Amino acid sequence: MDKMTFVLFGGTGDLAKRKIYPALYNLFIEGKLPESFSIIGLGRGQMTDEDFKERVKNSIHTFSRRMSKNDSTMERFLTFIRYSKLDAANKEDFHSLLKLVQDREKELNIPENRLFYLSVSPTFFETIAMNVKNSGLGTTKGWKRLIIEKPFGRDLESARSLNQNLSNAFAEEEIYRIDHYLGKPMVRNLETLEFANPVLQALWNNKFIANVQITASETVGVEQRAGYYDQAGALRDMFQNHMLQILMMTAMHAPKQTGENEIRAEKRKVLESLRPLEKNEIEKNVIRGQYDSGIGENENVPGYRDEPGVSEDSLTDTFIAARLQIDNPDWTGVPFYIRTGKKMKEKSTRIVVEFKANENEIYSDEDPNLLVIEINPNESVSLILNSKNPANGKMESINVDYASEKLDVPDGYELLIYDALRGDSRFFSHWDEVELAWEWVQPILEAFEENRIPLHKYAAGSNGPDAANLMLEEDGFKWWLDKPATEEKELVVQG
Amino acid sequence: MDKMTFVLFGGTGDLAKRKIYPALYNLFIEGKLPESFSIIGLGRGQMTDEDFKERVKNSIHTFSRRMSKNDSTMERFLTFIRYSKLDAANKEDFHSLLKLVQDREKELNIPENRLFYLSVSPTFFETIAMNVKNSGLGTTKGWKRLIIEKPFGRDLESARSLNQNLSNAFAEEEIYRIDHYLGKPMVRNLETLEFANPVLQALWNNKFIANVQITASETVGVEQRAGYYDQAGALRDMFQNHMLQILMMTAMHAPKQTGENEIRAEKRKVLESLRPLEKNEIEKNVIRGQYDSGIGENENVPGYRDEPGVSEDSLTDTFIAARLQIDNPDWTGVPFYIRTGKKMKEKSTRIVVEFKANENEIYSDEDPNLLVIEINPNESVSLILNSKNPANGKMESINVDYASEKLDVPDGYELLIYDALRGDSRFFSHWDEVELAWEWVQPILEAFEENRIPLHKYAAGSNGPDAANLMLEEDGFKWWLDKPATEEKELVVQG
Repeated sequence: MDKMTFVLFGGTGDLAKRKIYPALYNLFIEGKLPESFSIIGLGRGQMTDEDFKERVKNSIHTFSRRMSKNDSTMERFLTFIRYSKLDAANKEDFHSLLKLVQDREKELNIPENRLFYLSVSPTFFETIAMNVKNSGLGTTKGWKRLIIEKPFGRDLESARSLNQNLSNAFAEEEIYRIDHYLGKPMVRNLETLEFANPVLQALWNNKFIANVQITASETVGVEQRAGYYDQAGALRDMFQNHMLQILMMTAMHAPKQTGENEIRAEKRKVLESLRPLEKNEIEKNVIRGQYDSGIGENENVPGYRDEPGVSEDSLTDTFIAARLQIDNPDWTGVPFYIRTGKKMKEKSTRIVVEFKANENEIYSDEDPNLLVIEINPNESVSLILNSKNPANGKMESINVDYASEKLDVPDGYELLIYDALRGDSRFFSHWDEVELAWEWVQPILEAFEENRIPLHKYAAGSNGPDAANLMLEEDGFKWWLDKPATEEKELVVQG
Repeated sequence: MDKMTFVLFGGTGDLAKRKIYPALYNLFIEGKLPESFSIIGLGRGQMTDEDFKERVKNSIHTFSRRMSKNDSTMERFLTFIRYSKLDAANKEDFHSLLKLVQDREKELNIPENRLFYLSVSPTFFETIAMNVKNSGLGTTKGWKRLIIEKPFGRDLESARSLNQNLSNAFAEEEIYRIDHYLGKPMVRNLETLEFANPVLQALWNNKFIANVQITASETVGVEQRAGYYDQAGALRDMFQNHMLQILMMTAMHAPKQTGENEIRAEKRKVLESLRPLEKNEIEKNVIRGQYDSGIGENENVPGYRDEPGVSEDSLTDTFIAARLQIDNPDWTGVPFYIRTGKKMKEKSTRIVVEFKANENEIYSDEDPNLLVIEINPNESVSLILNSKNPANGKMESINVDYASEKLDVPDGYELLIYDALRGDSRFFSHWDEVELAWEWVQPILEAFEENRIPLHKYAAGSNGPDAANLMLEEDGFKWWLDKPATEEKELVVQG
C-alpha cells in the first residue's frame, strides 16, 4: 500500500472520535496501513500535538472494538499523528497545513500521496476543496483523494452545485463519497450472495419474486441532531442515499466482469430504470409519517414536535414508505417497498424477498417462501420454507438460516477507509448514483415541501403509520416480520 | 377411526417388543387408537394372557419413547390385549384364533375390521395368508388389512411368486408393505419440501442440478443377523427397497392432485424411467464392496468374513454404490449416485443435491451450492451458499441450515401403524414399486451371484472402497460431506 498523508478536517469532531480514529487504529494493528504514513488532525482550536494525541488515545480507548495487548503499539501509532489549527475560510491556515504536510512527508519519507477527509459540516465542503486547491495542497506528484461525508446536497440543484464546485478541485475518480451503509458487511456481501450462488441467481427475477421489502427502522429519535434533522427529514437523511443504495445492490444485474466500474454501471442502470413518480402519483406511492408520543423502552416518550429543537408545527418526515417500480425485463411487475423511520418498534435493517406462490395449485395455500437478509443489528441470511413438523406432521414454516457467529466484525469505517487508502471506490457513492437518486426523489421532496400529501402521525414505538400497511394491502401483500406493535392499553398501564 | 382387531403374528418376537407395542401404546396415550379395539398377540409357546400382558408392559417400559404419568393408563391399555398360541402351519390354531377374535369383537362391540400384522420370518408369509383366508378369519363384514415386513422376496421371481400367493387372500389395496424408511419423518417431509416451496420447485430439475447423492451409511456390522444377512447382502437388504424408495421420493414430479394414488403414480414413473443396466454396464456403474478388518469406535474390528456366522469365503456385499440415470425430461443428464454400507465411518442417511456451477464466469470458481437433507440420525435441511465472511471479506461457504429442535418426534412405527389403521397407504410400498425395483436390480443380483464384477474390500471404519470415489471422479464429481477416513497409522497405534 502506498505511503500517504491522511488529512482529517474535523479532527476534533464527534465522528473522528467515535469512528475514524478507532478505524485507523484497528487498521494499524492489523498491518493494513502502509509502513509509513502521516495523520494530520485539524480543528478550530489551538492544541499541542501532545494534547491532541492524548485525545486520540482516549477516543480509541473508549470506542475501539479492540485494543492491542501491547502498549507500545499505541505509542507507535501516535507517533504518526500531528495536529494543526485550521479555520476553513482562512487561506493562511492552509499554507501552514501545506508546510506541515510537506515537513512530515520529508521526515517520514512519504511521497506526495494525500487523502483529505472532510468530516465537517457540509457548509464547509466547497470552501475546503477550493482552499486545498489554491494552497497547493492538492498539487501533488502522487495521488490525491477526497473522502466526503453526507449529506451530499439537500436537493437535486444543491447537489449539482456542490458537485460542480468540488470538481474544480478533485476529479470524480478522486472523490470518495461515504455512504456508511456501504460499509456494513452484509451490504458488501449482497453482490456475492446474489451472483456467486446459482440457486439464488436463478430465482432473482420477476418470474419467481413477488415483491421486495427493504426496511431500515430505528428506535432512536433525533437525539442531539434536531437542528439538522428538522431541516432534512427521513427522505434526505436515509432514503435518498442509504435506502436507494441498498435498492441498487439488491436489484442490479450480475456484471459481465468484476470491477468497480462494471458494478457501478449496473447500479446506475437500476436507478435509470426506476419509474419516475408523476406529481399526481406521489400520494398513492409515498407515505409520509411523523412520530407522535408513544412508548419507548420503559417510558412514555414525547412526539417529534415536542422534541427540543423542533418547531411545534414541524412537517418534517421522520418516516417514509414508498412503492417503487423498476422497468426492466427482470423486475417489471415486482414492487419494491422501501421504508425507514425513527422511533419505531424495533431496530432493524433488512431485506425481505417474497417469492411468488406455487404454480401447482395443490400446494399454493402455503405461506410464501421468503429470503430474509438481516443487515443490522444482526447479520444473517434466512430462507423460510414450508416443511412438515416431524413431531406432528403438520405443515409449518421452517427457518433455514445462517446467523454469522459472533465474529469480530470490523466496523464499516475500517472497511471504507481501507478501501479509500487502496483506491477502491466500489463501496462509495458515485456522482451518477447521487444525481439519479436526487432526480428520482426531487418530486417527492417538492410534494413534502408544498405539503401536498398527508403527514401521517404514528405512535412512537409502533411500526409506523397504518397508511404504510394499506399501501401493501392494496397489492395483496403485507410487511413481513414486523414485531407486533405495542398495545395502546400497555401505554396506559405503563404511563 | 374404525374400531378394529389388531392381530399380531410374531407377538413374542423382537420387532414386536422393540417397536410395535411401544408404537401402539404411544398411539393409545395420544388418543389415536379407536375407542374400542382388540389386540391379539400370537406366538408359538403357551402363555397366559396375564403373562403376555406382563411382557408387553415390560417391553413398553423398556422401549417406549415416553410413559404416561398415570399407571391406570397402562392398565387400561392392557385390558385390550389377549394372547393366543399359534403355529403358522396348524389350521386348528387359526380356527381357535378366529373364535377368540370373534369373542372379543362381541365383547368389545367391534365390527369385523381386522388388521393382520406379519412380524414373522418371510418363510411364513404365504402360509399365514392362506390360513387366514381358509379359516374364515379374512372373511369379514368390515375391512381387512395385511401389514407385512420386509423382505418382500429375494429376487424378481420370488417376489412375484410371493405377491401372487398373497393376492389369493388379500387384494393389493389391502396389503401394507412396510418400508420403515418411509416412516422416517424427514422422508415423509420430502414431498412437502420439494413441492410446497416454489424456490425449491423451480430448481428441482436438470437445468440447475448437477447430480444427486443418496447415502445410507451404518457404523454397525451384521450383529446377530449374520445368518440372514449373508444370504441377502446390501443390495437386497437396503438398496432394492429403502434406497430406491428415497430415490423415488426425491426424483418424482409434483402430482396434479394430492392423494396416495397420484403420489404412487409419480413414484412409479421414476422407476419406469430408470435406465436399465445392461450386463456389460454393471461393472462401470455398480461398486460392490465388503468390509475388511479395520477400526471401530475404540478398537480393532474383524472383517466381514471373520464375523461369527459368515463363511470365510463369503462374497456377500456389505456395501454397494451405484450410478443411476433417470431418462425423463427433468432428469436426463443428472446422475443419481446411491450408496449404502455397513461398518462405515459414520452413521448417516442423507440426500445431497449438488447444483450446477454459475453460468456467469466471473463467479464460477466458487464451491457449488448444495442442498443437504439429513434423514438420520439427525433431521435437518441445509442450503450451502457462498458468502463473504463479514470479519475478513473472504469468500467462503455458509451453511444456511434448519436443524429440527429436539422435538419429541414419533417413531416411524407409530406413524406407519397409524397410517395403516386409517387405511392410508401412501407411505407403504406398492407392488408396482416393489416389482419395478426388483426388475431394475435383478441384473445386478445376477452379476453378484455369478461373481462377474469385483468385490472391493474396504476397511471397517472407512467411507467404503476407493472404487466408489473413482466412479464419481470419472464424472468430475465427489461424494460430499464424508468425514475424513481414519488413517492407517492410527490403526497401528491403536492396535
